[in-house]
Amino acid sequence: MRLTEVKGVRTRSGMSVDDLAQELSGCAFGAGRLARAVDIYEEMLKDDTTKFIGIAGALVPAGMRTVIAHMIRERYVDVVVTTGANLVHDIIEALGHHHYKMEESEASDTVDDAGLRGQGMDRIYDIVVHDEAFAMLEEFVRGIFDDLDCSGNQRYSISALTKAIGENLSDRDSILKSAVDSDVPVFCPAIADSMIGLHAWIYKQTAALHVDAFDDMKELIDIFCDAKRTGAIILGGGVPKNFIFQTALVAPQRDDGREGFDYAIQITTDTPENGGLSGATLDEAKSWGKIGVKAKAVTLYSDVTIALPLILAAVQTRMHENKKT
Amino acid sequence: MRLTEVKGVRTRSGMSVDDLAQELSGCAFGAGRLARAVDIYEEMLKDDTTKFIGIAGALVPAGMRTVIAHMIRERYVDVVVTTGANLVHDIIEALGHHHYKMEESEASDTVDDAGLRGQGMDRIYDIVVHDEAFAMLEEFVRGIFDDLDCSGNQRYSISALTKAIGENLSDRDSILKSAVDSDVPVFCPAIADSMIGLHAWIYKQTAALHVDAFDDMKELIDIFCDAKRTGAIILGGGVPKNFIFQTALVAPQRDDGREGFDYAIQITTDTPENGGLSGATLDEAKSWGKIGVKAKAVTLYSDVTIALPLILAAVQTRMHENKKT
Amino acid sequence: MRLTEVKGVRTRSGMSVDDLAQELSGCAFGAGRLARAVDIYEEMLKDDTTKFIGIAGALVPAGMRTVIAHMIRERYVDVVVTTGANLVHDIIEALGHHHYKMEESEASDTVDDAGLRGQGMDRIYDIVVHDEAFAMLEEFVRGIFDDLDCSGNQRYSISALTKAIGENLSDRDSILKSAVDSDVPVFCPAIADSMIGLHAWIYKQTAALHVDAFDDMKELIDIFCDAKRTGAIILGGGVPKNFIFQTALVAPQRDDGREGFDYAIQITTDTPENGGLSGATLDEAKSWGKIGVKAKAVTLYSDVTIALPLILAAVQTRMHENKKT
Amino acid sequence: MRLTEVKGVRTRSGMSVDDLAQELSGCAFGAGRLARAVDIYEEMLKDDTTKFIGIAGALVPAGMRTVIAHMIRERYVDVVVTTGANLVHDIIEALGHHHYKMEESEASDTVDDAGLRGQGMDRIYDIVVHDEAFAMLEEFVRGIFDDLDCSGNQRYSISALTKAIGENLSDRDSILKSAVDSDVPVFCPAIADSMIGLHAWIYKQTAALHVDAFDDMKELIDIFCDAKRTGAIILGGGVPKNFIFQTALVAPQRDDGREGFDYAIQITTDTPENGGLSGATLDEAKSWGKIGVKAKAVTLYSDVTIALPLILAAVQTRMHENKKT
Repeated sequence: MRLTEVKGVRTRSGMSVDDLAQELSGCAFGAGRLARAVDIYEEMLKDDTTKFIGIAGALVPAGMRTVIAHMIRERYVDVVVTTGANLVHDIIEALGHHHYKMEESEASDTVDDAGLRGQGMDRIYDIVVHDEAFAMLEEFVRGIFDDLDCSGNQRYSISALTKAIGENLSDRDSILKSAVDSDVPVFCPAIADSMIGLHAWIYKQTAALHVDAFDDMKELIDIFCDAKRTGAIILGGGVPKNFIFQTALVAPQRDDGREGFDYAIQITTDTPENGGLSGATLDEAKSWGKIGVKAKAVTLYSDVTIALPLILAAVQTRMHENKKT
Repeated sequence: MRLTEVKGVRTRSGMSVDDLAQELSGCAFGAGRLARAVDIYEEMLKDDTTKFIGIAGALVPAGMRTVIAHMIRERYVDVVVTTGANLVHDIIEALGHHHYKMEESEASDTVDDAGLRGQGMDRIYDIVVHDEAFAMLEEFVRGIFDDLDCSGNQRYSISALTKAIGENLSDRDSILKSAVDSDVPVFCPAIADSMIGLHAWIYKQTAALHVDAFDDMKELIDIFCDAKRTGAIILGGGVPKNFIFQTALVAPQRDDGREGFDYAIQITTDTPENGGLSGATLDEAKSWGKIGVKAKAVTLYSDVTIALPLILAAVQTRMHENKKT
Repeated sequence: MRLTEVKGVRTRSGMSVDDLAQELSGCAFGAGRLARAVDIYEEMLKDDTTKFIGIAGALVPAGMRTVIAHMIRERYVDVVVTTGANLVHDIIEALGHHHYKMEESEASDTVDDAGLRGQGMDRIYDIVVHDEAFAMLEEFVRGIFDDLDCSGNQRYSISALTKAIGENLSDRDSILKSAVDSDVPVFCPAIADSMIGLHAWIYKQTAALHVDAFDDMKELIDIFCDAKRTGAIILGGGVPKNFIFQTALVAPQRDDGREGFDYAIQITTDTPENGGLSGATLDEAKSWGKIGVKAKAVTLYSDVTIALPLILAAVQTRMHENKKT
Repeated sequence: MRLTEVKGVRTRSGMSVDDLAQELSGCAFGAGRLARAVDIYEEMLKDDTTKFIGIAGALVPAGMRTVIAHMIRERYVDVVVTTGANLVHDIIEALGHHHYKMEESEASDTVDDAGLRGQGMDRIYDIVVHDEAFAMLEEFVRGIFDDLDCSGNQRYSISALTKAIGENLSDRDSILKSAVDSDVPVFCPAIADSMIGLHAWIYKQTAALHVDAFDDMKELIDIFCDAKRTGAIILGGGVPKNFIFQTALVAPQRDDGREGFDYAIQITTDTPENGGLSGATLDEAKSWGKIGVKAKAVTLYSDVTIALPLILAAVQTRMHENKKT
């Protein structure tokens, strides 16, 4: 057990986000973990690491879309695994629709969901989306399906479908468009569990559409096996977390004996005590060989919408200063 | 706003689980919600309701497999939507392997995950599974894949695959076997995100296996539309929660104007404050039309392994007593 | 590390709460911990243990008052440490006022707190109390203060004050009355942080009232030191948790080398990851010597209002059956 | 209900903490709440507000001591209400002792608490303190007690005691010393629940020490009543949260009809679902009149060690820029 003295934080007017991250590095609890996440991310970026990002939770509706698109364009991440909902909301924004935040009223923050239903608004915590956004989504997605050639039993992988969607978007802030532009694959194993899935069902009632449930795994596993070093940035758990980590289960040991991910950063508000995978510690993943026993890994218990921009701004500062020297 | 007086709980030696549930009905907080969950479940069962259960979290490893299998056999549930991991662990038990609980040592409950790795044990919170269990799983699953006829571009839905697995099991405590015996479909939209997915990938390197990502949705949505009344029992959130609720989005309004689920019980330790769907309130689902604005619905914030057996024992008592009269 | 096979739960119509607890003992996660809590409590009761209960969270408003009063009367607990608010609400009920639960409306469970303010109702999650209850409390508490003889610089300890209150109540379901009847001391170190504290301040503007902040500690520590074996039942953390555990810090080692509590059960929804004491593990308490390194201890992550009645009913059954044999 | 479009965050190299806070203001979820907390704090500071800070959780051990001391010195806060433990650890640091962070080992982050006990180290999550620190504390505190004149039944309030301690410290980074230097009162209603309380007990076995449980309330309530505007910054809930808010219960309405706090910021990882006060919403406090129905208030669900330095750095930047113009 290595012990280091806790050092109190000092803040000051005008300090940069990276200044703050460095101040927090002397702290314990979440502050120390946040500082460690910045350090690990910086090391990942300098160490020729193939970086997998897992995206769960309604991060796109909440405003993290631009951050993630930026990470893709700058190749701060190399592989995306996401829930279907985040893709749905990425498309909605790319098509010109918006998400709206309910400002706390003066008197109360109560919400009348039955009333929202009557007004054609769909709620995600403190966000609403209008029904029309989903109508426009349907039209767009059907066009994508039409363009896929499913005659002659032609099958598509899910990542081929997400790529086809990205190719039909022009918004540079879009995750899917940015991924296409940057040659970053977007995996979405549970895509059926989203509006895209629902429209696929409607479409399949009258036309052919063959998307294979397992075809993607080969590409994902090949990327893992071909990488010199591997890193995982897990936002929020869920299917993306496990889908990323399980690739390590079928990869052979490296020549130097390494197995599992070399780096891992997990940002979540879920905790281990309920036994579910979303809140499981990264240490637990070591027992499976998903993360190397000597990996640099940290779990940060935080709302992703706070931690992710903060970490990214700090890491960008460091990478920029590295370039200059 | 209807107000009822909080009544203090009275416990006594030998009281039944249902006696306790009835005592809790006078309480507020979790106790009151638990009592309400029992009441809603009882009403669901008496009201000719088609009951969908969503299973997320490591419930099978923790010992809930027999409970869920029992619910299927007694048709306390009619449709299962689950994570892939719960199926994997169901198969492992059905093949004669076991999960093991780490008893708290006398001095400490620390865990050495690197050590577990060396011993061939994979940890799930306070549970371990031996690597051999997964080796036996691989052999079994490959046999299932071999039996599927994928020549001539024959495609399977995921539920057809889960059914094929169940048909090859003989353990009456198995979820998959019980589902086959009881004609209950088992949906698993993110099946790629599991050991079954990994073995499908390995298999596909040398043989044909075509499982469609979207084929299941028709069956699921038809069941919803054909049902007189619908109920959802959501254990732990995740993909199963949304996959069940989104069926309601494409179903037409009932003749009497109802839309969405008529009953819903959600048991989770996740809370709404992180904005993710797993912890979203059932009221939020009303804004989407996933749950009817007049539905009877309750969220119980609890470890599922505590609440589910308790609720089931209470409801069984009531249903049994109903039969007698 | 001792491993035991996880055994699936089997429920049945009419099963008793203790039957259920025994079924859960084969499970992992919360179910296993709940079963272990029952076992530890049973062992405490059979082992001539002095049992300290810590009460935090709005347990009395939620309906746990009768349970706790019953535990005191049956000497399932020997020492009470509580927040001031639970005493306030205990008095309110004893004076004939009630707490009211807001039944979920059909359409929505939203709450209009500004509206409640206008109606003279004070909310505690899904409970409301009427302003009149607090008016009656004030009158009662002032009467108690009047009866204390604070002439000549006579000082009272906080537990002397809680005892004086209990002596003036006649409701057998009251915690304070039950404590007086059963000779169980009630400590409340943060009593200033409650309506009792507010009325003490008002009273002191015109009359003498001397209650010492530290006088209680002697009695509490003496009880700990005089006990053959000691056990702690911690409901919800907070000041009561630490106040109970810190008594062990100043007690000398037992002749047989034991130090700290011999038994501990903690029921909380707080988790360790924020670093605060309320969610701290019982293992952490071992590093301080608050709990013995060989103590039997379990933390159950659960809403107390669910877990406490369940544990109590199971333990009562076992103790009753023990008596018969 | 006022709706504003969610705007995606853009980060950049070298951006300041306040730049980040402004970017987050277009987001929903935690990011939006954090930005709102910065805005509210800025408004508090510009609006001649008397600012009460509540400190719960092991913030001093984790490294927040310097931040809080700085807030006191700059009069970013005017009144402190804290747990006893934070004072204990403030004194320990002021006396030259330190807290130590356990760096995650390469292989595992497990902890052996029994082993720590043997080594004389006391653990607080990922922090340890050496037993010697507490030995030095004892000596220091006894000296303070010796200096108090308790002859002739002289009584002290708790805040008089904390002031006496601060007067005997010389470390400018100390909360207690900073408070004395800045004429900021430090209230600690549950001081008995701390090492200071334990040493008071030991001291009282041989000498007189009279500290009154209720004497502080007059000063606290007077400050509230005399303030033009009032604001609360609640870190982590617990006794400090309620003790601050309950002052509003006995204050008369302002001439303009206002009652309760005018501003409130709550930073916590606790959520409302367990019904306890620590996680209760600020809206709930409006039903009691603790917070004004038109108050500007926000709850930020976050580890305080992350959020507090971030908010402070952003607010300092704004206040500094205001000065310049």
